[in-house]
Amino acid sequence: MKFSIPPLDAAIVPALQQRIDSKTKPLGALGQLERLALQVGQVQKSLTPSLEQPHLLVFAGDHGAAKAGVSAYPQDVTWQMVENFLAGGAAINVFARHNGLVLQVIDAGVAHDFGKRDGLVDAKIASGTRSYLDGAAMTADERDAALVKGAEIARRLAGGGCKVLGFGEMGIGNTASASLLTHCLTGAPLADCIGRGTGLDDAGLARKRALLARAVARAALPANADAPAVLAEFGGFEIAMMAGAMLAAAECGVLLLIDGFIVTSALLVAARIAPDICDYCIFCHRSAEPGHRAQLHDLRAEPLLDLGLCLGEGTGAALAWPLVRAAAAFLNEMASFESAGVSGKSV
Amino acid sequence: MKFSIPPLDAAIVPALQQRIDSKTKPLGALGQLERLALQVGQVQKSLTPSLEQPHLLVFAGDHGAAKAGVSAYPQDVTWQMVENFLAGGAAINVFARHNGLVLQVIDAGVAHDFGKRDGLVDAKIASGTRSYLDGAAMTADERDAALVKGAEIARRLAGGGCKVLGFGEMGIGNTASASLLTHCLTGAPLADCIGRGTGLDDAGLARKRALLARAVARAALPANADAPAVLAEFGGFEIAMMAGAMLAAAECGVLLLIDGFIVTSALLVAARIAPDICDYCIFCHRSAEPGHRAQLHDLRAEPLLDLGLCLGEGTGAALAWPLVRAAAAFLNEMASFESAGVSGKSV
Repeated sequence: MKFSIPPLDAAIVPALQQRIDSKTKPLGALGQLERLALQVGQVQKSLTPSLEQPHLLVFAGDHGAAKAGVSAYPQDVTWQMVENFLAGGAAINVFARHNGLVLQVIDAGVAHDFGKRDGLVDAKIASGTRSYLDGAAMTADERDAALVKGAEIARRLAGGGCKVLGFGEMGIGNTASASLLTHCLTGAPLADCIGRGTGLDDAGLARKRALLARAVARAALPANADAPAVLAEFGGFEIAMMAGAMLAAAECGVLLLIDGFIVTSALLVAARIAPDICDYCIFCHRSAEPGHRAQLHDLRAEPLLDLGLCLGEGTGAALAWPLVRAAAAFLNEMASFESAGVSGKSV
Repeated sequence: MKFSIPPLDAAIVPALQQRIDSKTKPLGALGQLERLALQVGQVQKSLTPSLEQPHLLVFAGDHGAAKAGVSAYPQDVTWQMVENFLAGGAAINVFARHNGLVLQVIDAGVAHDFGKRDGLVDAKIASGTRSYLDGAAMTADERDAALVKGAEIARRLAGGGCKVLGFGEMGIGNTASASLLTHCLTGAPLADCIGRGTGLDDAGLARKRALLARAVARAALPANADAPAVLAEFGGFEIAMMAGAMLAAAECGVLLLIDGFIVTSALLVAARIAPDICDYCIFCHRSAEPGHRAQLHDLRAEPLLDLGLCLGEGTGAALAWPLVRAAAAFLNEMASFESAGVSGKSV
């Protein structure tokens, strides 16, 4: 799979910075929002970037290992939550609605037959992955199919004029997959990559740690295993499909809103395939799930929000989106000292 | 001046917490947003709080000491920025517009004759304060008039159904006033309360420090001076009027969105008059202006955003408002496990 993601062009930076500095505010007074405005302008190669048709995609998939007890919730919650998304009752529905994001739910591999449904994109690779405790979670063909389908979804949206894609996910057991991917791709100790997910108690956490250590030992991947190999071994279909969508979206010059731990595990895969993708990413929040720290450190990312969230679904991305919109808006809509007739510094 | 602000009623907390915990998400997974939802419900004594008619008030005033060189900008910038607000070109206009806040600008004491203008509330106490380098910035009568006018503005809005008031300000020289108020009211060392404001260079910062030390020595306030006395000595009219508006708004059960350093200096005054006001406050962001740290520490406050902003105008409040709206929205609009037919924890 080849993706051609160009590094950002620095040529526009001086003009963008000049435009930011001409606005009626002290130099630098909008802090991180100014860096965001610069990034958005660079991604779009424009002094007047426009963040049209922002979408949030929730990719759902099931995990074979969920039945071994890596999660506090039963596997059925994956399809039940997809139904909740379709009915508009989940947190991500509420936040997307209030913040002006179009929500789309993608069945990447839920172990449930939804039939044909409004608002649900059928991109099912299989009814859940196999358990990585016994063998690879997916075949190379399944992985590639998931990457391709994700890329197709992103390209279709970009072709229709979408300039911003937020990412979210649902899948009982997917913090465990994300922990394994994070451990293998960043080299952080496995224990630092594992947390309570949806709320394991101490005994549950100990069980999750033991199971994931067993999975790592079973797979016996070489230290230099490439990201696609690691993805097939441990990944969920929703994670693979997100990685494909991210890569294709960045290739189209779309801005990516990165949510928490699981979404960032997909980005780790994407960034190993095409490192310049990170320039297109806005890191929306710092998750309370401990493994997110290792991911952000690896990607040298500083997120916008730090609110102790650990819900997934793209909720952190949806909550941070108004800040991104505000960054583009100040660049486009604020008056300059000259246009407003405001005096400059006297000392 | 008497304000009767009741402490929040804890009786509703168990029912609110039960409602939060019944939503389709792991316990506590919305982090700080869950604490916000609890606070909003307590302020409104309601399991279904409604944040109708959110307003953002920008109070503007001039400072006699500005001419002595406590700011990087000339005093005329105060009225010029008021014109910018009225024309819709300032940062706060952009952010209020995109985030659904009604903006009102209040002339609390700008040294300029605006005439009668659409969108500008004339509450001018005088054409700027006197310089606190020579004597008290305002008389006791002026201070009380500012508190009363602020209270009237807030009561009128609350009477019309406004449930959320954000606070912002404009006034060349007002970080210096805020530094003096913060030093006197929190006891923090003066040097820790003084920053670069709108962008003083090193020489300017040294001059500001020397001038403010002179002002403290000149005033020679007793260590136990009460907040109204400190306010008259150093405060701006915009700061006094904000304090009055905050006190009356909380009395009416309105939720207060607290911006950065200068707005928090008004809250310090209000909190000394009626300490329970803090329960009605949402601390929106951590300002890059260093004195804000001493204020937040004094008020035991943990802000929502930390983006290195130091613009004032209420921009931090306007940027955090979507988070507050999201907190109320999840409480009101999310499905419960029962209503959505989603299974609970299995372990």
